[in-house]
Amino acid sequence: MKQTRVGVLGIGAVEPALPVLHAEDLGLTRGDGCFEATRVVTDAAGSHRIDHLSEHLDRFDRSCAGLQLPPIDRDAWWLLIDELLQGWSVPGEAMLRLMISRGRESTPAGPITGIATLTPIAAETLRQRAEGISVITLNRGFDCDAFADAPWLLGGVKTLSYAVNVAATREAVRRGANDVIFTSTDGKLLEAPTSTVLWHTGGALHSTPPGASGVLASITQQALFAAAESAGYHCRYLLGTAEDLLSADGAWLVSSGRGVAGITTLDGRTLTDNPAMTGQLTALAGF
Amino acid sequence: MKQTRVGVLGIGAVEPALPVLHAEDLGLTRGDGCFEATRVVTDAAGSHRIDHLSEHLDRFDRSCAGLQLPPIDRDAWWLLIDELLQGWSVPGEAMLRLMISRGRESTPAGPITGIATLTPIAAETLRQRAEGISVITLNRGFDCDAFADAPWLLGGVKTLSYAVNVAATREAVRRGANDVIFTSTDGKLLEAPTSTVLWHTGGALHSTPPGASGVLASITQQALFAAAESAGYHCRYLLGTAEDLLSADGAWLVSSGRGVAGITTLDGRTLTDNPAMTGQLTALAGF
Repeated sequence: MKQTRVGVLGIGAVEPALPVLHAEDLGLTRGDGCFEATRVVTDAAGSHRIDHLSEHLDRFDRSCAGLQLPPIDRDAWWLLIDELLQGWSVPGEAMLRLMISRGRESTPAGPITGIATLTPIAAETLRQRAEGISVITLNRGFDCDAFADAPWLLGGVKTLSYAVNVAATREAVRRGANDVIFTSTDGKLLEAPTSTVLWHTGGALHSTPPGASGVLASITQQALFAAAESAGYHCRYLLGTAEDLLSADGAWLVSSGRGVAGITTLDGRTLTDNPAMTGQLTALAGF
Repeated sequence: MKQTRVGVLGIGAVEPALPVLHAEDLGLTRGDGCFEATRVVTDAAGSHRIDHLSEHLDRFDRSCAGLQLPPIDRDAWWLLIDELLQGWSVPGEAMLRLMISRGRESTPAGPITGIATLTPIAAETLRQRAEGISVITLNRGFDCDAFADAPWLLGGVKTLSYAVNVAATREAVRRGANDVIFTSTDGKLLEAPTSTVLWHTGGALHSTPPGASGVLASITQQALFAAAESAGYHCRYLLGTAEDLLSADGAWLVSSGRGVAGITTLDGRTLTDNPAMTGQLTALAGF
């Protein structure tokens, strides 16, 4: 826990070695809450840059709406984040993580629980960004339109209930790979457990559409699409397949911490290595 | 938090008003863990009876295996439960809840987190047991065999990632009902967010089969089936439909806290009221 900052909404920065959550908090007992994670870059002088914080707070708010939680208190979150950053001078890249739970079971009308943490990005994550990743596909068990008209399935809501995402990543590691792309029962690419699929083919950059697919709307991918469009790329949302990745000019998983990681192999088959485009997309995404 | 006991595995009973979980505990950040819940009945003299604790600990162990967590330390859990009960003299029914998370993100090789709580069963739960419940069906988005050969989907694992279960229950309340039965995309009855479906038709008691359906193997239903067989009932596992409930002699949701709750209506249609069988099944289940 060295080089970690922890804050509690409405309280402020707290000692990272101390517990902050009650045994009956619904964030623990039910995974009933949502989170955001974004990158903080700190320079040698101790100045900070937070990636797309406003967009992350917007999505945090949408997740709360999806969970029928009250809108986020942006001022309170800004205050807490500011306090955490004031005590942070580790040069390099860190992850800022914001979490909201429905609060304590014993006080149903009581406040939500809000927690923020700030931790350096792991060396292994930076290595994967630099060197690329091996990926397997795993069936997510849903059709590609399972989330249409079923808001209780929480499609696109970034909940704290990530046990399946973590289990899928463990399965990838067990098979000697770095990451997973979930596929639908009808063979469409969905998303990775904590990142978004991107591929370039037919002169256009593609990513999977959120909405009925249940896929999370990725802030990093949206920012990259905006920058890429300005740089002359054609960008499209498409439900693709594993075959699309195998025939693409390049394929990546994008996320707020690892950035733009080139997919080197998919289910053991080598994908087209496109270092020039990986470099360009990485720069366009701000990494 | 009055009339609540909280314990931490390896530490013992702690003050319920104090937090016990770290901000970076994977139980909070990822819902990466599992739980059990069972009933404790305390008599006027302060003696306790714990329902099926051994079977719940067995299932706890199976959940840990499904999550690739180490086997549970039964002695340590018994010790903790015993300590919580020693300080408990509230006559009536309480829920004992046991939770394991993968532990703290900063110490990947470190210990799991184990937490236990003891809380009186809510009056509303007892009322639903006595008076029955109105239920709606909601599509769970999975086919009835989606979990076959896909262990990363954690079928049958009682994880802490219950956000969808809670959201579905909220949807029921929004529609003026008490509870939900999830159905598969192919129209089969699966389970309720925190209980198991039971119906009696054609001279036999039926419940949904665990396994490929992803349905949790219910301790309460299994105990009831064993007792009911001894009492002369025929008991079967079957993937039924909403129509089966509508034409049944009686239908119930069973769980460790609420016991055997008669389903009075399903999607607004009245089911057969069978108070004699409800009473008999309730007694057979030990409620």
